[in-house]
Amino acid sequence: MSILVVGSVAFDSVKTPFGEATDVLGGSACYFSISASFFAPVNLVAVIGDDFPQAHLDLLQEFPIDLRGLQKVPGKTFRWAGEYGFALNEAKTLDTQLNVFESFKPEIPAGYRNCEYVFLGNIDPVLQRDVLSQVSKPKFVACDTMNYWITSKLEELRKTLAEVDILIINDAESRMLTGQPNLTKAARTICSWGPRILVVKKGEYGVAMYTDGSIFGAPAFPLEEVFDPTGAGDTFAGGFIGYLAKRGRLDDETLRKAVIYGSVMASFNVEDFSLNRLKRLKHSEIQERYRQFQALTHFEADHSL
Amino acid sequence: MSILVVGSVAFDSVKTPFGEATDVLGGSACYFSISASFFAPVNLVAVIGDDFPQAHLDLLQEFPIDLRGLQKVPGKTFRWAGEYGFALNEAKTLDTQLNVFESFKPEIPAGYRNCEYVFLGNIDPVLQRDVLSQVSKPKFVACDTMNYWITSKLEELRKTLAEVDILIINDAESRMLTGQPNLTKAARTICSWGPRILVVKKGEYGVAMYTDGSIFGAPAFPLEEVFDPTGAGDTFAGGFIGYLAKRGRLDDETLRKAVIYGSVMASFNVEDFSLNRLKRLKHSEIQERYRQFQALTHFEADHSL
Repeated sequence: MSILVVGSVAFDSVKTPFGEATDVLGGSACYFSISASFFAPVNLVAVIGDDFPQAHLDLLQEFPIDLRGLQKVPGKTFRWAGEYGFALNEAKTLDTQLNVFESFKPEIPAGYRNCEYVFLGNIDPVLQRDVLSQVSKPKFVACDTMNYWITSKLEELRKTLAEVDILIINDAESRMLTGQPNLTKAARTICSWGPRILVVKKGEYGVAMYTDGSIFGAPAFPLEEVFDPTGAGDTFAGGFIGYLAKRGRLDDETLRKAVIYGSVMASFNVEDFSLNRLKRLKHSEIQERYRQFQALTHFEADHSL
Repeated sequence: MSILVVGSVAFDSVKTPFGEATDVLGGSACYFSISASFFAPVNLVAVIGDDFPQAHLDLLQEFPIDLRGLQKVPGKTFRWAGEYGFALNEAKTLDTQLNVFESFKPEIPAGYRNCEYVFLGNIDPVLQRDVLSQVSKPKFVACDTMNYWITSKLEELRKTLAEVDILIINDAESRMLTGQPNLTKAARTICSWGPRILVVKKGEYGVAMYTDGSIFGAPAFPLEEVFDPTGAGDTFAGGFIGYLAKRGRLDDETLRKAVIYGSVMASFNVEDFSLNRLKRLKHSEIQERYRQFQALTHFEADHSL
């Protein structure tokens, strides 16, 4: 079944200790869409300016991504510039130009309104709820957010959280949202606000998923070269939601597999700048890395004590 | 088979956001010994001053720990004082009084020299090699170290590493030792220096083990209350080496189980100050938490792509 995603399409300029890239394709909706499209068709809702080149649209259309919800308006496309040190877990934002994204008002095309799976990328929580008001009874809704909304619109964010099934954020956001340094306690608090599933991304330290009565922990894939972490979180969300949509189930076994597929997709994404690695990714490589994740984490039962 | 451990016995004074404890029993050799003794008998080599109370010796003797190698000399026992903030991964050292530990010269009693399993706790790398010169062909040697020796005695440390099978350190030490921010690359470098197995402790983010041709990753046990992380690393090493000694094997399956038992022991240790939790720990609790680790990390194979 199709997935509806609402988020940003951007030009990113990124510096890492390993190189730099200027005005390359980025944005949460791009990373999410291409990643998810390996698992299920995606309907994309976002905004671009009239400076957005046809080549990028052509790239997106090489994947099963529907672009009828991609508004093109006069002005410049959203731009972000950031830098990473050797501690690749955290970006230093150098410049943000919202441009056409500043007045973005998501309009869900009629053909998208029956999507069963919805991912609300990191946008104003008021707009996230506005999107939900335009769709009819999705099977599940997942969302992301960031420190900016946690500090500036906490009340609105809490209202959005009351309407979603799955929240996917990083460990710092989880602590900030609850004021609770212990992640396990923070998870319990967040789940009492609405989401029945919380997925906490910890960058190079992996992922923890909290559901009612179960915690799942998975390490990140041990790479010798992390080239550019930009978009890793949205690429994770794409693999995670993509697999859930493909299976059409939310049981514990399926959710755990989805976390691994999300981790697999993120591990590929950081191997190159922008969407360069995802562009040339093959299904067989995804499947092979899933197997490597099993080899990485497996241990046998023991009853010797 | 018995394990030989050489390390420190100390009085610790610890402040955490959850309380404080003054002049309580600590030191790498104590945490290691009590933890390992749940799996195999331990022979302890360390030094104490004449201020060391009989009650602490009585406690150690409640476990299968041989104290013939515990030297009592005139003077005061080693004292350490530290503080943790809400980020419990890192201690701030407030005070270190080496006292009798300053002139510690490990003497291995005749009855210990045939120990097949040796753990060289965090002491001067010159002394670590001196210990090895006093034992006869152990089956394996594991060692720990710290930032102090990495910066002040790197050459001596490298000589020690050339003689050990397993190095157990934390992620910051691993990066400092190699000047390499990427842990996977750092592991390859360290293993080229001698140890065929590297275990990297990442505190609340779990453990990674690097062996020839295999990487194993395990999350930490998700606790809602981490009371005091002091000694977690040595308690991990105790469970890890203890299980290996109990099984008498170093194959990949056994090593992975040992990482989990180490993680189990560390997860109990941080639930209370000093050795208070280990003191009252039951074998059945260890076995139960091992099972919980399986539930935490397990996911099924998938071939749906």
